[in-house]
Amino acid sequence: MMDLFEKGSVFDQVQKELPDGYAIRPLRSDDFGKGYMKLLSQLTVVGDVSQQRFDETFKYMAQRNNEYHVVVIEELSTKSIVASGSCMVEQKFIRECGKVAHIEDVVVSDTMRGKNFGRRLIDQLTAIGKAAGCYKAILCCDEKNEGFYAKCGYKKKEIEMVVYY
Amino acid sequence: MMDLFEKGSVFDQVQKELPDGYAIRPLRSDDFGKGYMKLLSQLTVVGDVSQQRFDETFKYMAQRNNEYHVVVIEELSTKSIVASGSCMVEQKFIRECGKVAHIEDVVVSDTMRGKNFGRRLIDQLTAIGKAAGCYKAILCCDEKNEGFYAKCGYKKKEIEMVVYY
Repeated sequence: MMDLFEKGSVFDQVQKELPDGYAIRPLRSDDFGKGYMKLLSQLTVVGDVSQQRFDETFKYMAQRNNEYHVVVIEELSTKSIVASGSCMVEQKFIRECGKVAHIEDVVVSDTMRGKNFGRRLIDQLTAIGKAAGCYKAILCCDEKNEGFYAKCGYKKKEIEMVVYY
Repeated sequence: MMDLFEKGSVFDQVQKELPDGYAIRPLRSDDFGKGYMKLLSQLTVVGDVSQQRFDETFKYMAQRNNEYHVVVIEELSTKSIVASGSCMVEQKFIRECGKVAHIEDVVVSDTMRGKNFGRRLIDQLTAIGKAAGCYKAILCCDEKNEGFYAKCGYKKKEIEMVVYY
Protein backbone atom coordinates (compact mmCIF):
# COMPACT_ATOMS: atom_id res chain seq x y z
CA MET A 1 0.00 0.00 0.00
CA MET A 2 1.48 3.30 -1.07
CA ASP A 3 0.42 6.94 -0.86
CA LEU A 4 0.29 8.79 -4.15
CA PHE A 5 2.52 11.37 -2.52
CA GLU A 6 4.04 11.98 0.86
CA LYS A 7 1.41 13.03 3.38
CA GLY A 8 2.81 16.15 4.95
CA SER A 9 1.58 18.83 7.28
CA VAL A 10 -0.28 20.37 4.35
CA PHE A 11 -3.18 18.07 5.31
CA ASP A 12 -3.29 18.86 9.01
CA GLN A 13 -5.31 22.06 8.86
CA VAL A 14 -8.12 20.70 6.70
CA GLN A 15 -8.24 17.44 8.70
CA LYS A 16 -9.13 19.49 11.78
CA GLU A 17 -12.16 20.90 9.96
CA LEU A 18 -13.61 17.47 9.14
CA PRO A 19 -16.19 15.71 11.32
CA ASP A 20 -14.97 12.74 13.37
CA GLY A 21 -14.71 9.52 11.43
CA TYR A 22 -13.41 11.03 8.20
CA ALA A 23 -9.84 11.35 6.98
CA ILE A 24 -8.46 13.55 4.20
CA ARG A 25 -5.29 12.20 2.61
CA PRO A 26 -3.54 11.39 -0.68
CA LEU A 27 -4.98 8.64 -2.86
CA ARG A 28 -3.55 5.21 -2.00
CA SER A 29 -3.03 2.16 -4.14
CA ASP A 30 -5.66 0.21 -2.16
CA ASP A 31 -8.39 2.81 -2.72
CA PHE A 32 -9.56 0.90 -5.77
CA GLY A 33 -11.05 -1.59 -3.27
CA LYS A 34 -12.63 1.27 -1.31
CA GLY A 35 -14.92 2.38 -4.12
CA TYR A 36 -12.75 5.09 -5.65
CA MET A 37 -13.81 4.43 -9.24
CA LYS A 38 -17.45 4.12 -8.24
CA LEU A 39 -17.23 7.56 -6.64
CA LEU A 40 -15.74 9.01 -9.83
CA SER A 41 -18.68 7.59 -11.79
CA GLN A 42 -20.86 10.13 -9.97
CA LEU A 43 -18.81 12.84 -11.71
CA THR A 44 -18.67 11.57 -15.29
CA VAL A 45 -18.18 8.54 -17.51
CA VAL A 46 -15.62 6.23 -15.97
CA GLY A 47 -16.01 3.07 -18.05
CA ASP A 48 -14.80 -0.38 -17.13
CA VAL A 49 -11.47 0.07 -15.34
CA SER A 50 -9.82 -3.11 -14.03
CA GLN A 51 -7.70 -3.25 -10.90
CA GLN A 52 -4.67 -3.70 -13.18
CA ARG A 53 -5.53 -0.59 -15.21
CA PHE A 54 -6.02 1.38 -11.99
CA ASP A 55 -2.67 0.14 -10.68
CA GLU A 56 -0.86 1.17 -13.88
CA THR A 57 -2.40 4.65 -13.79
CA PHE A 58 -1.61 5.00 -10.09
CA LYS A 59 1.99 4.00 -10.76
CA TYR A 60 2.26 6.49 -13.64
CA MET A 61 1.13 9.28 -11.31
CA ALA A 62 3.28 8.09 -8.40
CA GLN A 63 6.34 8.32 -10.64
CA ARG A 64 5.36 11.94 -11.27
CA ASN A 65 4.34 12.79 -7.72
CA ASN A 66 5.52 16.38 -7.99
CA GLU A 67 2.88 16.82 -10.68
CA TYR A 68 -0.09 14.63 -9.70
CA HIS A 69 -1.78 15.17 -6.37
CA VAL A 70 -5.00 13.22 -5.93
CA VAL A 71 -6.78 13.80 -2.62
CA VAL A 72 -9.55 11.69 -1.11
CA ILE A 73 -11.80 11.79 1.93
CA GLU A 74 -12.37 8.36 3.47
CA GLU A 75 -15.25 7.38 5.72
CA LEU A 76 -13.30 5.28 8.21
CA SER A 77 -16.18 3.17 9.59
CA THR A 78 -17.10 1.85 6.13
CA LYS A 79 -13.62 2.06 4.60
CA SER A 80 -15.10 3.88 1.64
CA ILE A 81 -13.91 6.87 -0.39
CA VAL A 82 -16.62 9.52 -0.27
CA ALA A 83 -14.98 12.55 -1.91
CA SER A 84 -12.04 13.23 -4.21
CA GLY A 85 -10.31 15.89 -6.26
CA SER A 86 -6.97 16.37 -7.93
CA CYS A 87 -4.37 19.09 -8.34
CA MET A 88 -2.01 18.81 -11.29
CA VAL A 89 1.04 21.03 -11.26
CA GLU A 90 2.08 22.38 -14.66
CA GLN A 91 5.56 23.75 -15.32
CA LYS A 92 5.68 26.88 -17.50
CA PHE A 93 8.24 29.24 -19.00
CA ILE A 94 6.21 32.36 -18.23
CA ARG A 95 6.23 33.96 -14.76
CA GLU A 96 9.94 33.23 -14.26
CA CYS A 97 9.45 29.59 -15.22
CA GLY A 98 6.56 29.43 -12.78
CA LYS A 99 4.05 26.69 -12.06
CA VAL A 100 0.25 26.55 -12.21
CA ALA A 101 -2.05 24.26 -10.22
CA HIS A 102 -4.92 22.78 -12.23
CA ILE A 103 -7.74 21.64 -9.96
CA GLU A 104 -9.67 18.83 -11.60
CA ASP A 105 -12.24 16.10 -11.06
CA VAL A 106 -13.76 17.31 -7.81
CA VAL A 107 -16.58 15.03 -6.64
CA VAL A 108 -18.44 14.45 -3.37
CA SER A 109 -20.63 11.38 -2.99
CA ASP A 110 -24.32 12.27 -3.21
CA THR A 111 -24.79 10.47 0.13
CA MET A 112 -22.48 13.00 1.82
CA ARG A 113 -24.15 16.34 1.18
CA GLY A 114 -24.16 19.00 3.88
CA LYS A 115 -20.79 18.13 5.41
CA ASN A 116 -18.84 20.85 3.57
CA PHE A 117 -16.64 18.19 1.95
CA GLY A 118 -16.56 20.17 -1.30
CA ARG A 119 -15.19 23.18 0.52
CA ARG A 120 -12.64 21.04 2.38
CA LEU A 121 -11.42 19.46 -0.85
CA ILE A 122 -10.98 22.82 -2.57
CA ASP A 123 -9.16 24.24 0.46
CA GLN A 124 -6.88 21.19 0.47
CA LEU A 125 -6.16 21.22 -3.27
CA THR A 126 -5.53 24.96 -3.20
CA ALA A 127 -3.12 24.52 -0.29
CA ILE A 128 -1.28 21.79 -2.18
CA GLY A 129 -0.83 24.07 -5.19
CA LYS A 130 0.59 26.73 -2.91
CA ALA A 131 2.92 24.27 -1.18
CA ALA A 132 4.09 23.12 -4.61
CA GLY A 133 5.21 26.68 -5.37
CA CYS A 134 2.52 27.58 -7.91
CA TYR A 135 1.74 31.24 -8.57
CA LYS A 136 -1.96 30.50 -9.17
CA ALA A 137 -4.57 27.74 -9.13
CA ILE A 138 -7.25 27.45 -11.80
CA LEU A 139 -10.34 25.33 -12.29
CA CYS A 140 -13.30 25.18 -14.62
CA CYS A 141 -16.85 24.90 -13.34
CA ASP A 142 -20.46 25.31 -14.31
CA GLU A 143 -21.65 28.90 -14.05
CA LYS A 144 -24.10 27.88 -11.32
CA ASN A 145 -21.16 26.92 -9.06
CA GLU A 146 -19.45 30.31 -9.32
CA GLY A 147 -20.79 31.34 -5.89
CA PHE A 148 -19.38 28.23 -4.22
CA TYR A 149 -15.91 28.78 -5.66
CA ALA A 150 -16.08 32.48 -4.80
CA LYS A 151 -16.53 31.44 -1.15
CA CYS A 152 -13.35 29.35 -1.58
CA GLY A 153 -11.47 32.49 -2.70
CA TYR A 154 -11.67 32.02 -6.48
CA LYS A 155 -12.66 34.68 -9.00
CA LYS A 156 -14.12 34.30 -12.46
CA LYS A 157 -11.54 34.98 -15.13
CA GLU A 158 -12.10 33.54 -18.59
CA ILE A 159 -14.28 31.03 -20.38
CA GLU A 160 -13.45 27.39 -21.07
CA MET A 161 -13.52 26.11 -24.64
CA VAL A 162 -13.45 22.41 -25.45
CA VAL A 163 -13.20 20.03 -28.37
CA TYR A 164 -14.01 16.32 -28.05
CA TYR A 165 -12.03 14.05 -30.36
CA MET B 1 20.49 21.29 -29.79
CA MET B 2 17.53 19.08 -28.93
CA ASP B 3 13.86 19.06 -29.84
CA LEU B 4 11.47 19.12 -26.91
CA PHE B 5 9.84 16.08 -28.47
CA GLU B 6 10.28 14.00 -31.59
CA LYS B 7 9.08 15.89 -34.64
CA GLY B 8 6.72 13.47 -36.36
CA SER B 9 4.26 13.60 -39.22
CA VAL B 10 1.84 15.39 -36.90
CA PHE B 11 3.50 18.63 -38.06
CA ASP B 12 3.37 18.01 -41.81
CA GLN B 13 -0.20 19.10 -42.43
CA VAL B 14 0.02 22.44 -40.64
CA GLN B 15 3.45 23.16 -42.15
CA LYS B 16 1.85 23.04 -45.61
CA GLU B 17 -0.57 25.78 -44.57
CA LEU B 18 2.18 28.19 -43.55
CA PRO B 19 3.59 30.86 -45.89
CA ASP B 20 7.09 30.22 -47.28
CA GLY B 21 9.88 31.10 -44.90
CA TYR B 22 8.18 29.91 -41.72
CA ALA B 23 8.55 26.58 -39.95
CA ILE B 24 6.30 25.04 -37.28
CA ARG B 25 8.09 22.61 -34.99
CA PRO B 26 8.70 21.61 -31.36
CA LEU B 27 10.57 24.04 -29.11
CA ARG B 28 14.33 23.50 -29.22
CA SER B 29 16.97 24.15 -26.63
CA ASP B 30 18.54 26.89 -28.76
CA ASP B 31 15.29 28.86 -29.06
CA PHE B 32 16.27 30.93 -26.04
CA GLY B 33 18.71 32.66 -28.40
CA LYS B 34 15.97 33.11 -30.98
CA GLY B 35 13.83 35.38 -28.83
CA TYR B 36 11.52 32.78 -27.32
CA MET B 37 11.23 34.46 -23.92
CA LYS B 38 10.82 37.89 -25.51
CA LEU B 39 7.89 36.52 -27.49
CA LEU B 40 6.30 35.14 -24.30
CA SER B 41 6.58 38.58 -22.73
CA GLN B 42 3.94 39.73 -25.24
CA LEU B 43 1.56 37.28 -23.55
CA THR B 44 2.14 37.98 -19.87
CA VAL B 45 4.74 38.64 -17.20
CA VAL B 46 7.88 36.63 -17.92
CA GLY B 47 10.39 38.14 -15.53
CA ASP B 48 14.14 37.81 -15.74
CA VAL B 49 14.87 34.28 -16.96
CA SER B 50 18.53 33.40 -17.51
CA GLN B 51 19.78 30.98 -20.15
CA GLN B 52 20.52 28.54 -17.33
CA ARG B 53 16.99 28.77 -15.92
CA PHE B 54 15.57 28.27 -19.41
CA ASP B 55 17.81 25.24 -19.91
CA GLU B 56 16.71 23.68 -16.62
CA THR B 57 13.03 24.18 -17.45
CA PHE B 58 13.56 22.83 -20.96
CA LYS B 59 15.28 19.76 -19.52
CA TYR B 60 12.46 19.21 -17.01
CA MET B 61 9.94 19.19 -19.86
CA ALA B 62 12.13 17.08 -22.15
CA GLN B 63 12.27 14.41 -19.45
CA ARG B 64 8.45 14.43 -19.53
CA ASN B 65 8.06 14.68 -23.27
CA ASN B 66 4.87 12.63 -23.31
CA GLU B 67 3.31 15.40 -21.21
CA TYR B 68 4.84 18.68 -22.38
CA HIS B 69 4.51 19.70 -26.02
CA VAL B 70 5.64 23.23 -26.75
CA VAL B 71 5.26 24.32 -30.37
CA VAL B 72 6.85 27.31 -32.05
CA ILE B 73 6.74 29.02 -35.43
CA GLU B 74 10.14 30.29 -36.57
CA GLU B 75 10.77 32.97 -39.15
CA LEU B 76 13.69 31.36 -40.93
CA SER B 77 15.23 34.47 -42.51
CA THR B 78 15.65 36.20 -39.13
CA LYS B 79 16.04 33.02 -37.05
CA SER B 80 13.41 34.34 -34.67
CA ILE B 81 10.49 32.69 -32.88
CA VAL B 82 7.32 34.53 -33.85
CA ALA B 83 4.55 32.35 -32.37
CA SER B 84 4.21 29.70 -29.69
CA GLY B 85 1.74 27.59 -27.77
CA SER B 86 1.80 24.52 -25.59
CA CYS B 87 -0.21 21.36 -25.10
CA MET B 88 0.11 19.59 -21.77
CA VAL B 89 -1.26 16.06 -21.55
CA GLU B 90 -2.88 15.20 -18.23
CA GLN B 91 -3.46 11.59 -17.15
CA LYS B 92 -6.78 10.92 -15.44
CA PHE B 93 -8.69 8.04 -13.84
CA ILE B 94 -12.02 9.03 -15.39
CA ARG B 95 -12.92 8.08 -18.98
CA GLU B 96 -11.21 4.67 -18.68
CA CYS B 97 -8.04 6.27 -17.35
CA GLY B 98 -8.16 8.75 -20.23
CA LYS B 99 -6.04 11.78 -21.01
CA VAL B 100 -6.87 15.45 -21.52
CA ALA B 101 -4.90 18.00 -23.56
CA HIS B 102 -4.57 21.41 -21.90
CA ILE B 103 -3.78 24.08 -24.48
CA GLU B 104 -1.88 26.92 -22.84
CA ASP B 105 0.19 30.03 -23.45
CA VAL B 106 -0.75 30.71 -27.07
CA VAL B 107 0.93 33.84 -28.39
CA VAL B 108 1.61 35.33 -31.82
CA SER B 109 4.06 38.21 -32.17
CA ASP B 110 2.26 41.50 -32.75
CA THR B 111 4.44 42.00 -35.83
CA MET B 112 2.92 38.85 -37.42
CA ARG B 113 -0.79 39.64 -37.54
CA GLY B 114 -2.84 38.55 -40.57
CA LYS B 115 -0.90 35.37 -41.32
CA ASN B 116 -3.33 33.02 -39.54
CA PHE B 117 -0.55 31.88 -37.20
CA GLY B 118 -3.00 31.71 -34.29
CA ARG B 119 -5.20 29.32 -36.23
CA ARG B 120 -2.20 27.22 -37.29
CA LEU B 121 -0.98 26.93 -33.71
CA ILE B 122 -4.38 25.84 -32.41
CA ASP B 123 -4.72 23.31 -35.23
CA GLN B 124 -1.25 21.97 -34.41
CA LEU B 125 -1.77 21.79 -30.65
CA THR B 126 -5.18 20.15 -31.12
CA ALA B 127 -3.63 17.57 -33.47
CA ILE B 128 -0.91 16.83 -30.90
CA GLY B 129 -3.53 16.20 -28.21
CA LYS B 130 -5.31 13.79 -30.54
CA ALA B 131 -2.06 12.02 -31.47
CA ALA B 132 -1.29 11.68 -27.74
CA GLY B 133 -4.54 9.74 -27.31
CA CYS B 134 -6.52 12.41 -25.44
CA TYR B 135 -10.32 12.25 -25.44
CA LYS B 136 -10.64 16.05 -25.41
CA ALA B 137 -8.66 19.29 -25.56
CA ILE B 138 -9.51 22.29 -23.40
CA LEU B 139 -8.36 25.88 -23.19
CA CYS B 140 -9.35 29.06 -21.42
CA CYS B 141 -9.74 32.34 -23.28
CA ASP B 142 -11.20 35.79 -23.04
CA GLU B 143 -14.88 35.91 -24.00
CA LYS B 144 -14.00 38.15 -26.95
CA ASN B 145 -11.98 35.30 -28.50
CA GLU B 146 -14.83 32.77 -28.40
CA GLY B 147 -15.50 33.29 -32.12
CA PHE B 148 -11.90 32.58 -33.07
CA TYR B 149 -11.82 29.33 -31.12
CA ALA B 150 -15.24 28.34 -32.50
CA LYS B 151 -13.69 28.56 -35.99
CA CYS B 152 -11.00 26.17 -34.71
CA GLY B 153 -13.71 23.67 -33.72
CA TYR B 154 -14.02 24.52 -30.01
CA LYS B 155 -17.24 25.07 -28.10
CA LYS B 156 -17.86 27.04 -24.94
CA LYS B 157 -18.35 24.76 -21.95
CA GLU B 158 -17.74 26.18 -18.49
CA ILE B 159 -16.20 29.18 -16.78
CA GLU B 160 -12.66 29.48 -15.48
CA MET B 161 -12.09 30.39 -11.84
CA VAL B 162 -8.70 31.44 -10.53
CA VAL B 163 -6.90 32.24 -7.31
CA TYR B 164 -3.50 33.99 -7.25
CA TYR B 165 -1.25 33.05 -4.35
